[in-house]
Amino acid sequence: MLSLQPTAGYAIRLRCEIQNLPGGLGRLTSAIGRAGGDIDAVDLVEHQGRVLVRDLTVKCRDEAHGQDIARRVRRVRGIELIEVSDRTFDLHRGGKIEIACRLPMKSRDDLAMAYTPGVGRISRAIAAEPDRAWQLTIKANSVAVLTDGSAVLGLGNVGPEAAMPVMEGKAMLFKEFAGIDAYPICARVNSDEELIEVARAISPGFGGINLEDIAAPRCFEVEEVLRRQLDIPVFHDDQHGTAVVVTAALFNAARLTGRRVEGMTATVVGVGAAGSACARLLLEAGIGDLIAVDRNGIIDADDPDLCGVQREIALNSNRDHRRGGVREALIGSDVLIGVSRPGIIEPAWLTTMAKDAIVFALANPVPEIMPEAMPPTVRIVATGRSDYPNQINNVLVFPGFFRGLLDARAGTVDSRMKLTAAMALAGLVAEGELTEDYILPSVLDRRVAPAIANAVTAAVRDQAAEKPITPAAL
Amino acid sequence: MLSLQPTAGYAIRLRCEIQNLPGGLGRLTSAIGRAGGDIDAVDLVEHQGRVLVRDLTVKCRDEAHGQDIARRVRRVRGIELIEVSDRTFDLHRGGKIEIACRLPMKSRDDLAMAYTPGVGRISRAIAAEPDRAWQLTIKANSVAVLTDGSAVLGLGNVGPEAAMPVMEGKAMLFKEFAGIDAYPICARVNSDEELIEVARAISPGFGGINLEDIAAPRCFEVEEVLRRQLDIPVFHDDQHGTAVVVTAALFNAARLTGRRVEGMTATVVGVGAAGSACARLLLEAGIGDLIAVDRNGIIDADDPDLCGVQREIALNSNRDHRRGGVREALIGSDVLIGVSRPGIIEPAWLTTMAKDAIVFALANPVPEIMPEAMPPTVRIVATGRSDYPNQINNVLVFPGFFRGLLDARAGTVDSRMKLTAAMALAGLVAEGELTEDYILPSVLDRRVAPAIANAVTAAVRDQAAEKPITPAAL
Repeated sequence: MLSLQPTAGYAIRLRCEIQNLPGGLGRLTSAIGRAGGDIDAVDLVEHQGRVLVRDLTVKCRDEAHGQDIARRVRRVRGIELIEVSDRTFDLHRGGKIEIACRLPMKSRDDLAMAYTPGVGRISRAIAAEPDRAWQLTIKANSVAVLTDGSAVLGLGNVGPEAAMPVMEGKAMLFKEFAGIDAYPICARVNSDEELIEVARAISPGFGGINLEDIAAPRCFEVEEVLRRQLDIPVFHDDQHGTAVVVTAALFNAARLTGRRVEGMTATVVGVGAAGSACARLLLEAGIGDLIAVDRNGIIDADDPDLCGVQREIALNSNRDHRRGGVREALIGSDVLIGVSRPGIIEPAWLTTMAKDAIVFALANPVPEIMPEAMPPTVRIVATGRSDYPNQINNVLVFPGFFRGLLDARAGTVDSRMKLTAAMALAGLVAEGELTEDYILPSVLDRRVAPAIANAVTAAVRDQAAEKPITPAAL
Repeated sequence: MLSLQPTAGYAIRLRCEIQNLPGGLGRLTSAIGRAGGDIDAVDLVEHQGRVLVRDLTVKCRDEAHGQDIARRVRRVRGIELIEVSDRTFDLHRGGKIEIACRLPMKSRDDLAMAYTPGVGRISRAIAAEPDRAWQLTIKANSVAVLTDGSAVLGLGNVGPEAAMPVMEGKAMLFKEFAGIDAYPICARVNSDEELIEVARAISPGFGGINLEDIAAPRCFEVEEVLRRQLDIPVFHDDQHGTAVVVTAALFNAARLTGRRVEGMTATVVGVGAAGSACARLLLEAGIGDLIAVDRNGIIDADDPDLCGVQREIALNSNRDHRRGGVREALIGSDVLIGVSRPGIIEPAWLTTMAKDAIVFALANPVPEIMPEAMPPTVRIVATGRSDYPNQINNVLVFPGFFRGLLDARAGTVDSRMKLTAAMALAGLVAEGELTEDYILPSVLDRRVAPAIANAVTAAVRDQAAEKPITPAAL
């Protein structure tokens, strides 16, 4: 049974006429409280003689809960509910980002410099030396957030229009946490090739491409081809953002429980974009063993349904050749990484894991198994949710990661950069702070993006210097 | 012989150490003045005992002129020139636009609304009803400024990187004059089909597409296919922006000289993107006759080198079947519209035009024939330059035109919209203000964009109502 907390994501605004008599507001707020609503703000809108008009902003658990609260408010004596609006929808009207000019455009002189004839000189300079686009245009600080809308959040293939709000949200996070100018490109395409073509075609104006919410296995092929073809970095956040945060969390969970990564076994449940990338990065990090499970059970390199990436994982994991499903995989595992769907893990299975079991249940918003349902043998729990400790969210990675790539003018992304980013993220939790409930910094921690950017910049320079990756360097 | 004025587009900044003695600054500014530099600003940077450090911003005619001024400043007694920088290049560093967030992103609640879980609700709502993207995302106010870099300003096919500064400049103008959020997409493509594919693919996130700096004849085919395929308006500014301003200028020139458009003959020199669109719109406006001339002479529908658009123009123009070049075409013409290249018109030819001849010499920055070189028989002159009267520049049109398209949620552009926009632009010059030197509002006139937006919005509604275009309606 889920016990969701009210969240701002489901806040409603109730505009009420309240008879200006003692106890009126009290009855209203009490009714909301009894209904489980969390009152965020009470604003006075108007004073009309003996009647006050007030806006109450109330966090709810979900849409049905909001409707229930409104229904109950309508029944309160001396209160007239004039209007109910949905705060999240209100805020989204007109979208979440806009263009701003970095120069004035008020006078003929401004025009002469930013537009004709001055701009022709800049174009000529870049035509003569295309590299100067990195200095004289927005390129060096611009990232395309590119999607085909084929795997948006947990909603599936909802298409490019419905992907827009998510991409705009990412653009906001890029700007807010790393000062990067990101622009959403939501493409309507019919094939891998078309998506590749769009990315390739638009790349001259950008310093990097953040692929987003693209379904597996398309995402693997698209990213790999673009990596080879483009001279700017391409990073599929659902894969690598998740993998970096998970790896950082695993580093700290190992630190806290006195284990070495090389001695641990991880079970990864779900071998889509996120699961595959987590498995690959943990293998790069030198994890002892790994067992990957998809809906058909523990993956096997002979399975004809596997794509190339999944087959590669199958070949490099499951040393003991176990067979079966999640239940069989978990026996003796140190870590469970769930990137699949709600309700697929039985509590009893977790008791068969190794001592001090670590469980990352990342299906969102409803995890594979709720933290409350886990047996006491599980020592460290992380989820994708903000209302539990140890939130694993990509926003911890992508702003700083791209900041580092852009600052170093990286041409490509490699696993060294991801591993050093994971180290840097893990390192922000100091020895004395590390507890079962604090293995990762908060998503609002302003130290995160610069720390990751510095780590990535250093890794790009090492890549350029062709330094080998050594365990010590990590 | 060209007598260019100093412009801000070629301004330099001279950082000088000046001995703090009477006359020091005077000698410096006099030297700059004698060299023909136009001093814009004198700023104090530092006071070091008996030496002052000052920045002098000086408008120059061109780059060589700037170098000459610097050379002369170096020779002034008591002055040490520390640094010369180019103000236009300085201003372009890092590019001219950036992304701004329209909502705060500081707290967990902000994240919960703009990102997960709140954003998922918005995506679901749009997935259920894609039309809601117009309300709940940036789409309704967003325009893609799309180019392949094949015909950038007068520079030719300089490629997508070198096109960036121009597209950023357009984005600034969109924002400044019409509040539109435009984003530059500079595409590297190898064919018409690829450019069409990119435009089609990225269209879901935009409310309109401004095609820009695309060479003829590619631009005709690309625009026509996109017009048929997309449900948002597509407008090639080099064609239609120019055509609308030229038509507005012609309307006012006719008004001033007491002629009716239906009785006039126009010679259009250059049948590329701009020339073709001017010819087509003037034909739509009911011009009496039109003679189009390309580098092979007066165009003829039998010429196998003509593309479809040019052939259509040939079929609908040159009623008397004249043959020859510009010289032959001009005899008896009321109007010359030059959209070709410098130096191709002989002054003597203009004396053969009809009484009160009208000459729009729009090659930029150097016109087909300089105003000073025109015979006195020419009554009205317009150019693309800001240092002569009657500047014909697309910025008079595209911001307001797209504002109108977006406000009316137009699905396509038709010639009625262009003609009403031209009427609205012409109408901003009141009867009493109209003179040979003032047939168009200034590019900085803030009334222009709203007037054109209103006209376009009305035309879109008429289009939707399927009202026929009547001369009276124009």
